[in-house]
Amino acid sequence: MDKEPFEDKEQMIESEERIHRTTLHQIQERGVRLEDIADLVYRLQAEFYPDLTLAECGYHVEKVLQKREVQNAVLTGIQLDRLAEQKRLRAPLQNLIFNDEPLYGVDEILATSILHIYGSIGMTNYGYIDRVKPGILCRLNNREDGEIHTFLDDLVGAIAAAAAARLSHSRKRARDYGRGSPQEDPTD
Amino acid sequence: MDKEPFEDKEQMIESEERIHRTTLHQIQERGVRLEDIADLVYRLQAEFYPDLTLAECGYHVEKVLQKREVQNAVLTGIQLDRLAEQKRLRAPLQNLIFNDEPLYGVDEILATSILHIYGSIGMTNYGYIDRVKPGILCRLNNREDGEIHTFLDDLVGAIAAAAAARLSHSRKRARDYGRGSPQEDPTD
Amino acid sequence: MDKEPFEDKEQMIESEERIHRTTLHQIQERGVRLEDIADLVYRLQAEFYPDLTLAECGYHVEKVLQKREVQNAVLTGIQLDRLAEQKRLRAPLQNLIFNDEPLYGVDEILATSILHIYGSIGMTNYGYIDRVKPGILCRLNNREDGEIHTFLDDLVGAIAAAAAARLSHSRKRARDYGRGSPQEDPTD
Amino acid sequence: MDKEPFEDKEQMIESEERIHRTTLHQIQERGVRLEDIADLVYRLQAEFYPDLTLAECGYHVEKVLQKREVQNAVLTGIQLDRLAEQKRLRAPLQNLIFNDEPLYGVDEILATSILHIYGSIGMTNYGYIDRVKPGILCRLNNREDGEIHTFLDDLVGAIAAAAAARLSHSRKRARDYGRGSPQEDPTD
Repeated sequence: MDKEPFEDKEQMIESEERIHRTTLHQIQERGVRLEDIADLVYRLQAEFYPDLTLAECGYHVEKVLQKREVQNAVLTGIQLDRLAEQKRLRAPLQNLIFNDEPLYGVDEILATSILHIYGSIGMTNYGYIDRVKPGILCRLNNREDGEIHTFLDDLVGAIAAAAAARLSHSRKRARDYGRGSPQEDPTD
Repeated sequence: MDKEPFEDKEQMIESEERIHRTTLHQIQERGVRLEDIADLVYRLQAEFYPDLTLAECGYHVEKVLQKREVQNAVLTGIQLDRLAEQKRLRAPLQNLIFNDEPLYGVDEILATSILHIYGSIGMTNYGYIDRVKPGILCRLNNREDGEIHTFLDDLVGAIAAAAAARLSHSRKRARDYGRGSPQEDPTD
Repeated sequence: MDKEPFEDKEQMIESEERIHRTTLHQIQERGVRLEDIADLVYRLQAEFYPDLTLAECGYHVEKVLQKREVQNAVLTGIQLDRLAEQKRLRAPLQNLIFNDEPLYGVDEILATSILHIYGSIGMTNYGYIDRVKPGILCRLNNREDGEIHTFLDDLVGAIAAAAAARLSHSRKRARDYGRGSPQEDPTD
Repeated sequence: MDKEPFEDKEQMIESEERIHRTTLHQIQERGVRLEDIADLVYRLQAEFYPDLTLAECGYHVEKVLQKREVQNAVLTGIQLDRLAEQKRLRAPLQNLIFNDEPLYGVDEILATSILHIYGSIGMTNYGYIDRVKPGILCRLNNREDGEIHTFLDDLVGAIAAAAAARLSHSRKRARDYGRGSPQEDPTD
């Protein structure tokens, strides 16, 4: 990011709407459904909210995916996964990503940029599911299908953790409201 | 952050509403008006948007201040500034904050947590105004009044930079809309 | 951090040596021994390095604690824990820290500043032990002794995770060396 | 980063030495000399240290470039710049990077990962030079040569800011030593 203004090259400026749609499409192309991410949120939060439903989890996943910063990270990460899969990166980067090398870490950096949007409270959940690998994360991490998901598994974990943080903020406001505070939802 | 649930100790749970109000109040108590922060946003963005008004800048400053993460950082930073002012911190922390020691850096860490909420694009603006010190930042940094603002000046700069980032996102969506995209504002 | 230079107020400038010593002292005063942190590192890494010893873990913990950024975070966090314990903070911050309120998050922000020093690879380990709470973290989180450790438990987890990351970097270099690469240790 | 251990696929494991050498080589291939980065450090710090030399600045730049996290960010960023230059990325990512689109921000995220290694004190300097664009940054940002440097200009600014932070830490220790503290240099 270096120039603030949107200069006058209409045909090259991507609309927010298109960037959003492409992000959702690419996640699905790589074998991850929004339901899979909602399922991770549910696993992280069900013990704290007995009335939690998958639908509520899914709602917050969708909200997280409307954020441009999340879209930027997802589009960049999936692009690098694909190029590594096709062996079209230069050495040594090709091997670092292809092997999901332990000291590489750029995948975690992009994941962290997603977590930050809803504050620091998502960090713990992210670290936890990244190590325990429940649900879809287990499948992404298992490379039987020949696909490379070095970035995607961290991104999916981060989206789930961010959605869990958003859910916590939203529930807290709803709880305040039940006790008489004025309604308003600046959760986002 | 260690416990997810809100346990049943009603009298000790702070409402989001109260936390928000106290944050606004404490910023003013320390001599900073929202107009001062809006002025910083205007200085950062006026060259890119010829039709920009102080009112639009002020709107985004208010939105940033509704975020719980921003409130957490502001309440913590102002508390530490006050305690250093009253010389009630233990050595060596007392001197590090009292002198705004160059290698201390926790003030910048709290500021960064504010920037992150609107993605990475606020970083540049934050660094720039933190060094150039326009408007209110100059006054905060000038210790003639005997007050310590080690944290507050970084926090104010970060709130302005975050508001500038929010403004950019919002303008981009408005621009897309003008070109026919469906309206919706998930800027927050 | 606003001024780069160290101005000429000799008596107020804290030496790096003193800041380091005070940090070690305060951690112990709060009931945490370096052995406790080394034990966390061991739990995180023993499965990957069969020949790992507690002594090697302790070495990396000591190196992490020599970093000024770590010292800044620890001194600030312990100060806030103590003030909350003594009920000397202003509302609502007093309750947020005293209750380790889920949406507070500044404790995690300071912890993250420690993790970042050794890159992003410590994030996962931090999140994991923060949720599972092995060893000393369990005791810190159990408030039976009347002490408040809202910050300290996150800081200790982060120091352990950073030491684990440092260990991984160091082992990788040692492994390269065994295969004939020139020796040199810029791990730090 | 998902697996901690270095599995036994010798031929695919990149040595730290090779990753370091390739990083230096690729920076030069893209038209940036280490002297250019040292020059940025000098511009940032000369006012604070009257005896500062370009050689001292260059020493700290070299140290920063020995860090694996810096190498990871540089190799990834230059790869994306090259692919955008060759128009080999998928839409809309191709346009976002090719146009250095203001709301993209992943370039700043990678830059920030470099800054974090030496603590938060580099943030201000990074933001400042990213906006003022002195020396080499001006040339990188001027696209007359047909090259795309969306990532590289942010990375170079971050390396300079990190080197300036390292220099400050190092000078502070030297100053303590002059006043009788025991010598030791855990700056890194």
